[in-house]
Amino acid sequence: MDLIEETISAVEPTSEDWRARARSRIAQLTMPPRALGRLLELAEQVVAIRRTLRPGLADKLIIVMAADHGVAQEGVSAFPQEVTGQMVRNFVAGGAGINVLARTVGARVVVVDMGVNSDLSDLVQEGKILGRAVGPGTRNLARGPAMTGEQARQSLRTGIEIVRREHERGLDLLGIGDMGIANTTPASAIAAALTRSDPEVVVGRGTGIDDDTLTRKVSVVRRALEVNRPDPDDPVDVLSKVGGFEIGGIAGMVLGAVSLRIPVLVDGFISAAGALVAARLCPLACQYLIGSHNSVEPGHQVLMQALELRPLLDLGFRLGEGTGAAVAMHLVESSVRVLTEMATFGDAGVSGKCG
Amino acid sequence: MDLIEETISAVEPTSEDWRARARSRIAQLTMPPRALGRLLELAEQVVAIRRTLRPGLADKLIIVMAADHGVAQEGVSAFPQEVTGQMVRNFVAGGAGINVLARTVGARVVVVDMGVNSDLSDLVQEGKILGRAVGPGTRNLARGPAMTGEQARQSLRTGIEIVRREHERGLDLLGIGDMGIANTTPASAIAAALTRSDPEVVVGRGTGIDDDTLTRKVSVVRRALEVNRPDPDDPVDVLSKVGGFEIGGIAGMVLGAVSLRIPVLVDGFISAAGALVAARLCPLACQYLIGSHNSVEPGHQVLMQALELRPLLDLGFRLGEGTGAAVAMHLVESSVRVLTEMATFGDAGVSGKCG
Repeated sequence: MDLIEETISAVEPTSEDWRARARSRIAQLTMPPRALGRLLELAEQVVAIRRTLRPGLADKLIIVMAADHGVAQEGVSAFPQEVTGQMVRNFVAGGAGINVLARTVGARVVVVDMGVNSDLSDLVQEGKILGRAVGPGTRNLARGPAMTGEQARQSLRTGIEIVRREHERGLDLLGIGDMGIANTTPASAIAAALTRSDPEVVVGRGTGIDDDTLTRKVSVVRRALEVNRPDPDDPVDVLSKVGGFEIGGIAGMVLGAVSLRIPVLVDGFISAAGALVAARLCPLACQYLIGSHNSVEPGHQVLMQALELRPLLDLGFRLGEGTGAAVAMHLVESSVRVLTEMATFGDAGVSGKCG
Repeated sequence: MDLIEETISAVEPTSEDWRARARSRIAQLTMPPRALGRLLELAEQVVAIRRTLRPGLADKLIIVMAADHGVAQEGVSAFPQEVTGQMVRNFVAGGAGINVLARTVGARVVVVDMGVNSDLSDLVQEGKILGRAVGPGTRNLARGPAMTGEQARQSLRTGIEIVRREHERGLDLLGIGDMGIANTTPASAIAAALTRSDPEVVVGRGTGIDDDTLTRKVSVVRRALEVNRPDPDDPVDVLSKVGGFEIGGIAGMVLGAVSLRIPVLVDGFISAAGALVAARLCPLACQYLIGSHNSVEPGHQVLMQALELRPLLDLGFRLGEGTGAAVAMHLVESSVRVLTEMATFGDAGVSGKCG
């Protein structure tokens, strides 16, 4: 059996029994009923995933997958393609948004080259990034398939393998991030294909394009769907025809994490597109996902609905890299600490509700 | 000059010059323009308050002010009055929600007895809480003024003095919290009086009261306003007639913090009622306030509008104690670290926007 099918078949539903135990414990904590709202739902979800009332969160990890996109040549981004590789070097130096926000929450950052069109071999050799390039960027999806079916499967397998590798080192909570100039275009095409939405609805301004570029981007996505005719019922077909290597890697990470009972914080638009590919391959995966934040990208909301996620934060982020996931990790950690550290009415000698 | 007037007269507007410097620095950081949305606005506000591009946040503090309320005898709360004192002991033992959430974000918690109707003298003597009781709880505001004008001023002065005391130990960011069974009733009365709203609009379920109790609570607030006729243009009159000692203390803390250029995270409904008393005494105070979260209490939204605050989080909290402020401290810290730790395009060798 292939690693992908093997991983999917290992996924079990989260535990309703453990969720009920968490809920019952929470009812005894010294506060009015459900007074910490969504933090309590979050604690219950983590317990249902991890199957313990004391889920440790010492090992928090953000994995940032980077790749380039042939469609950049259509002029769909505000930034030149070389920025992908430059930003990978920024990640390694610790100077990017994700580095800062991960440090603030005590998370490690692992960077993966899934197919960046720059020479990053020095960073791979020095062990500063994982070199897993599926190719030197995808082909231009406006003119044909972004990658082969085998490349799509390779990107999924790579995501699974990387999560397994990190799990051996200790992994309690995973945030999935991306870097790739022009990658809101494949994410839009995936969103349009898998949710059967019009490109107009899911295409946004990405890194900040102007009106003319936005119009061009919509028509590029429309053309991509017409030229490639991805099958909405076949997520790997969609990924291969209009996706990206980092998006496939993200989908693979979701499958890998879910099979190992690790909660996954979905970040912005790209991350959500990868998560939806995973969820279409393995619908149970949704039970393990946590929506971090509402992205400014309009397609993000479409993806959150498809994933049945209600994001925790709404701060106007549109950066990617896993930045929203990193910030939301604080909420996950807070929720678990409420569950494990708060006193009960009995322990604290506090009177319960009247009557 | 009285301490209150002296404090108010020391308040200056936040610095537009420093805000512009922060904005200009942020424009150089390695991300698309404004890609971290509200986090960047937050960083700019902190810089405008603190007047430095490197505002340290090592000393984060939550001050929880506790007091009892004579109006509890009208049966407006789901919990008995003795819970106020019991919860103060829970705070001291570190078992309450605020303790957990403050620990998670690395903030200290200081607890103040502003007028709890239980014997807490052992905790005061052991230095575990600050004993600043204005009285053994307020009188029943449904039948006459909750306190005297002098008690209202004393509660304001106490808040100012406590912040000054903590500032001498180091105070970079303040969260203001409350504990007091029945205190959503005075908070509702203050909100109704100061914003000229109907009690129906601002009264909510507090710790979780049923429909009958809610109806009674609305009529209690209505009666309080009729019996006492607080002057909406005189915040101290409103505080004395329908307020609470901890709410006055919170208002005083806001004035004290603002005069010392310390950003203040407003928590839930009670904290916001105190903040509005302060803002009506000193409109410039609003520039120093940060809205932490949307409380479930309907009156909270009315207060946020009156304070011109757009809360950062929306997680269904209705606990008070400063819990929302504690969680939001992570966002403030994240925002400042983005400003101070992210690399610029120039430093990181990352290309800027095309064209």
